[in-house]
Amino acid sequence: MVFPLKGREGREGLPARVRIHEVGPRDGLQNESAIVPVQVKAEFIERLAAAGLSTVEATSFVHPKWVPQLADAEELYPRLGGLDGVRLPVLVPNARGLERALALGAREVAVFASATESFAKANLNRTVDGALEMFEPVVTRAKREGLRVRGYLSMCFGDPWEGPVPVEQVVRVCRALVGMGCDELSLGDTIGVATPGHVHALLTALERAGLPASGETDLAVHFHDTYGQALSNTFTALQHGVATVDASAGGLGGCPYAKSATGNLATEDLVWMLHGLGIETGVDLALLCATSRWMAERLGRPSPSRTVRALSGTASHKEQ
Amino acid sequence: MVFPLKGREGREGLPARVRIHEVGPRDGLQNESAIVPVQVKAEFIERLAAAGLSTVEATSFVHPKWVPQLADAEELYPRLGGLDGVRLPVLVPNARGLERALALGAREVAVFASATESFAKANLNRTVDGALEMFEPVVTRAKREGLRVRGYLSMCFGDPWEGPVPVEQVVRVCRALVGMGCDELSLGDTIGVATPGHVHALLTALERAGLPASGETDLAVHFHDTYGQALSNTFTALQHGVATVDASAGGLGGCPYAKSATGNLATEDLVWMLHGLGIETGVDLALLCATSRWMAERLGRPSPSRTVRALSGTASHKEQ
Repeated sequence: MVFPLKGREGREGLPARVRIHEVGPRDGLQNESAIVPVQVKAEFIERLAAAGLSTVEATSFVHPKWVPQLADAEELYPRLGGLDGVRLPVLVPNARGLERALALGAREVAVFASATESFAKANLNRTVDGALEMFEPVVTRAKREGLRVRGYLSMCFGDPWEGPVPVEQVVRVCRALVGMGCDELSLGDTIGVATPGHVHALLTALERAGLPASGETDLAVHFHDTYGQALSNTFTALQHGVATVDASAGGLGGCPYAKSATGNLATEDLVWMLHGLGIETGVDLALLCATSRWMAERLGRPSPSRTVRALSGTASHKEQ
Repeated sequence: MVFPLKGREGREGLPARVRIHEVGPRDGLQNESAIVPVQVKAEFIERLAAAGLSTVEATSFVHPKWVPQLADAEELYPRLGGLDGVRLPVLVPNARGLERALALGAREVAVFASATESFAKANLNRTVDGALEMFEPVVTRAKREGLRVRGYLSMCFGDPWEGPVPVEQVVRVCRALVGMGCDELSLGDTIGVATPGHVHALLTALERAGLPASGETDLAVHFHDTYGQALSNTFTALQHGVATVDASAGGLGGCPYAKSATGNLATEDLVWMLHGLGIETGVDLALLCATSRWMAERLGRPSPSRTVRALSGTASHKEQ
């Protein structure tokens, strides 16, 4: 059942269409213990595109020492040349990563900033401002080459060392990323602790600060399901008009019984909600679920996505 | 972090306090394949009460042939006598079940109606109206005995045979249950297909119909997490002022890889959200998680609650 939202009290603000920024091949596989062969990754991305996902974050040009799961970026990226019309951003941690991405003809890149000092230190061995100084020439050069640049902002809600993150702190780093020329910001709840009131508070603070300037920079949200809150938080963001949502096919990277689970929001659970709300995504849910089941077989374990499991069962229901 | 909601745009309608109607021992264990010994059930309920749950649905006086998991109701209920101040409703499917509950001194009962003809037929071999006719003398007698009566209404959103359920149909059965004298209605998404727009539509329709009359009948929601939507739907209900929410400790009854999973909303995931929103529940989350881990050990499998798993891991975070 599709609910016509127009004119419904309190629902007018929901976007008519949401672009899903699929992170399974990068954020998902980066957090799986298995190392997936490059031809499987390429087929995975092709299948995701065939299921209607228009943006698929393909890989990361980070040093292989840090993320061995994605050490095949140079081999993978050229295999995706046939995917016309699909955006294939890649993560670039620094200037060296950007050069590797440029050499392969990447058209979209993402940098990964932190809203907190502790995580900037742990992840990059820099201060927040030191990390921003490192990113500035990366973003500038990417823009000069005509690339679209996404700025990830991690730890926007809670930080394992610092606890709750003040919204003003997040607003300040957002302003810096927009000032550098980022085309898109992705607000990340890296440890999955946020709840809808916090999401509401941060998005309200950003709106009051005029960030991001409408029509210039897209705003995305990236919630983790560590405490089961990802979809409620996403719904809150939709209520604020956010129309780009990050998710991971089959909940990749969020294996329920792994200690290291990041608990990525499963794309299928997101699509179920969006379609139920009458919001267009362009995604064929049955094809997407088939892709996630196929990938789960390759990983040798069931998908943690509830929708994938439900639609695989005998009592599956039609999308409503 | 607690977010003071007062005066925050769009958040004024959230309740200051939510009563959780804990259904783990009944709806949860009824849907687990294992048969749990009666002394374990009694200890489970005692632990739930000690964790601050003020309402714990204890068991069901259904015929043992239909629900062998709860065949020990007569043995279990008298063991709970020491739980002063804790409400212990029991499910009664019919007049015979009510007599059994009365004989043991139960003070609260629940009947289980259907919003759809197909489920009324499948579950009770009656029409919707035929089932209501059967419940009427049960509710009348229970009220005469001074009992509090909850009316469950199943299939309020989707039905496996009929698909989406028109809100008018649900409103009609709600009106009948209120008319009988039910003190509380619990709107159930039995197959877990609902999304927030549908929840909004149903609650709006009930409000327009003046149901339930404010101050006379409580309104509760009962969402299943089959497609991962339970918490988003609950959040939508909170935005409508609903202040009683059903949930199952540890997500009991929703074992992620069981075909028969009902996918009950895990109480811990709900509590994480409510506390994050600054809504009081009276629940000690750490004690509740310890109880669910203890129960999961007895069932020989991990809890499907994401919060239970996260707080059991090495990277657990404080409630925010």
